[in-house]
Amino acid sequence: MRIVIAPTGFKECLDADAVATAIERGVRRALPHAATDTVPLVDGGEGSARLLADSTGGRLVPVEVTGPVGAPVPSHFALLGGAHRGTAFVEMAAAAGLGLVPADQRDPGATTSRGVGELIAAALNTGATSIVVGCGDSGVCDGGAGALQALGARVQDGAGAEIGHGGNEVGRARTLDVSELDRRLGEVDIVVAANPANVLCGPGGVAHVFGPQKGASPEQVEALASAMRNWAALLPNGEHLRLAPGGGASGGLGAGLAGALGARLASRFDVLLDTGDLDHRLADADLVITAEGAIDASTAGGKVPAEVARRAKNHGKPVIALAGTIGAGADTSYATGIDAFVGIVDGPLALAEAITEAPELLASATARALRMLTVGQSLAG
Amino acid sequence: MRIVIAPTGFKECLDADAVATAIERGVRRALPHAATDTVPLVDGGEGSARLLADSTGGRLVPVEVTGPVGAPVPSHFALLGGAHRGTAFVEMAAAAGLGLVPADQRDPGATTSRGVGELIAAALNTGATSIVVGCGDSGVCDGGAGALQALGARVQDGAGAEIGHGGNEVGRARTLDVSELDRRLGEVDIVVAANPANVLCGPGGVAHVFGPQKGASPEQVEALASAMRNWAALLPNGEHLRLAPGGGASGGLGAGLAGALGARLASRFDVLLDTGDLDHRLADADLVITAEGAIDASTAGGKVPAEVARRAKNHGKPVIALAGTIGAGADTSYATGIDAFVGIVDGPLALAEAITEAPELLASATARALRMLTVGQSLAG
Repeated sequence: MRIVIAPTGFKECLDADAVATAIERGVRRALPHAATDTVPLVDGGEGSARLLADSTGGRLVPVEVTGPVGAPVPSHFALLGGAHRGTAFVEMAAAAGLGLVPADQRDPGATTSRGVGELIAAALNTGATSIVVGCGDSGVCDGGAGALQALGARVQDGAGAEIGHGGNEVGRARTLDVSELDRRLGEVDIVVAANPANVLCGPGGVAHVFGPQKGASPEQVEALASAMRNWAALLPNGEHLRLAPGGGASGGLGAGLAGALGARLASRFDVLLDTGDLDHRLADADLVITAEGAIDASTAGGKVPAEVARRAKNHGKPVIALAGTIGAGADTSYATGIDAFVGIVDGPLALAEAITEAPELLASATARALRMLTVGQSLAG
Repeated sequence: MRIVIAPTGFKECLDADAVATAIERGVRRALPHAATDTVPLVDGGEGSARLLADSTGGRLVPVEVTGPVGAPVPSHFALLGGAHRGTAFVEMAAAAGLGLVPADQRDPGATTSRGVGELIAAALNTGATSIVVGCGDSGVCDGGAGALQALGARVQDGAGAEIGHGGNEVGRARTLDVSELDRRLGEVDIVVAANPANVLCGPGGVAHVFGPQKGASPEQVEALASAMRNWAALLPNGEHLRLAPGGGASGGLGAGLAGALGARLASRFDVLLDTGDLDHRLADADLVITAEGAIDASTAGGKVPAEVARRAKNHGKPVIALAGTIGAGADTSYATGIDAFVGIVDGPLALAEAITEAPELLASATARALRMLTVGQSLAG
């Protein structure tokens, strides 16, 4: 049996490489003679830069940037290697991720994407000809205003003063001037790798869908929604960007970069999964194993396991998934082509313990799932 | 597909009936056209009397007895119905179970099996011709001395005074006089349904194996082991009973009843599982699902899932198991005939929550396992 192991990382726990390795160990226990092919995958969010640097034979470049709460944070971007040489990958979560916002400062009305602009500037300094900005796991909701300011844009209030950090300040903006933007931006190809389900405005807009996750109260959500509407009115091509797929990614960073820099909004998996030649490898599989930290109602809406399942099903391959947590609505993921899924936790235990034990939990759960599958094979025989 | 669902209860959580019902609900979700046959099983411990009364069409008889720490507790025994009319089932855990010992009084040197003798006396009052004493989940280690005292035996120290409650007192005993035992005991058939792995003395004896579980310190374990050796020397046929299979059951209750009352020590599943015609029903199955609160290193040593698997394998049937917790050494259970097992917990969560959510967790985990099995069926096809 040929098994393709194509998981993404477990956020704040294990990166995709470690997840794939643990699953492979579990496969060996249950099916020692199976051939395995591991394809760790990224979704553009936390950990993506490091994994893409590794998997393409490129390197990480360390940079200190302005963090989401204004204090400097150590950050990095990736210069890809191999066939992707010349491309810089900027992980927005590495400069403005929710994980960089202390729990008591989770206020997307106040946090800034400024560091993302600083990473883009640093990537320009290396002579990269193409920049991919990976979205996901952000802790901000400023429409990318901070990132644009870092790149030379001016965002001013009614009195002609530059606005400060955060979504609340964006609500006060009255003008956006892009005439002083870093000239080199016009000479590179900029792609935003985003979940197309994320839009800037409207009832499904970023303020309503992600504001609460990022720490916004109901009143703050309304204020942020209003700020994003105001921002769309200032952005070049803003009327179109209000509901453009991916424009709401990372607190509206997608729309900001698309409007002010002419960046292309792309479906993240179209950009990111092709680095690993995923489709050809799926075509060779007898069974596909994928995994993510959670399988829940959001899985079907563009998470890695759903994308792996969709592609595997193009080749008629069976897909099973492993998850750290099985959440409400998980059964909706069956519609994506995931044939079966299991959780990795083996009994009541605390989150901290589950994180510490995650590699062994993953290996054991994989072995148990494959034994269950083997029972099915014997029933059919 | 015909699926036999033969679980036992989850201790301090769900009885076997509720477990079977939840699993059946999960089967319906994954395989709506499968035929199911539920056979809730008991192991003689906590909850067995209630389930046997229900499953045989008998009834529970409430009795107040002396609890393990000396205070009266509400208890009960079962009068079985149907083909088992005339048999009383005495669940030792209902009178001297660990669950009746407050956490701060868990000292098997001090707790008594007296209430078990009181239940036997109450069963005699009903005119039962046969009494089955179910062992398991006990909170005592007094060799059954308390139970025998309640039935008229005299257990005295070197000064001719009756000993008090608990294993430490048994260590002081110098004589056992059975001449004044309730006369009716000679006219009924008494069977102790026990795990044959449990013996009274030696390195695998009850003090060493179960003392720590019941709250004994290392010093107390040695004192209890010495008390059990002393008790074996006083019991009729005691030299044989030191290592007799089942003699160590429920803190040595098995040996006490066997020595002083002539009770027969039987393997618990030989006595208990035949009430449900289990073997014939397994013979008709395409798949067997069993379950217990935990699958771990102890499963193979005579727990319900292992016995179900052993019997199912006599008919060549595949067996899968569900567990609230998968503990250390769980993989040793494969040797019993369990082909695959899974945990029911769907993510990091507290024990209290797992208990509250257990029926839905069981149903969901069953459905997920069967979907995994179905993937295997499709792979074989």
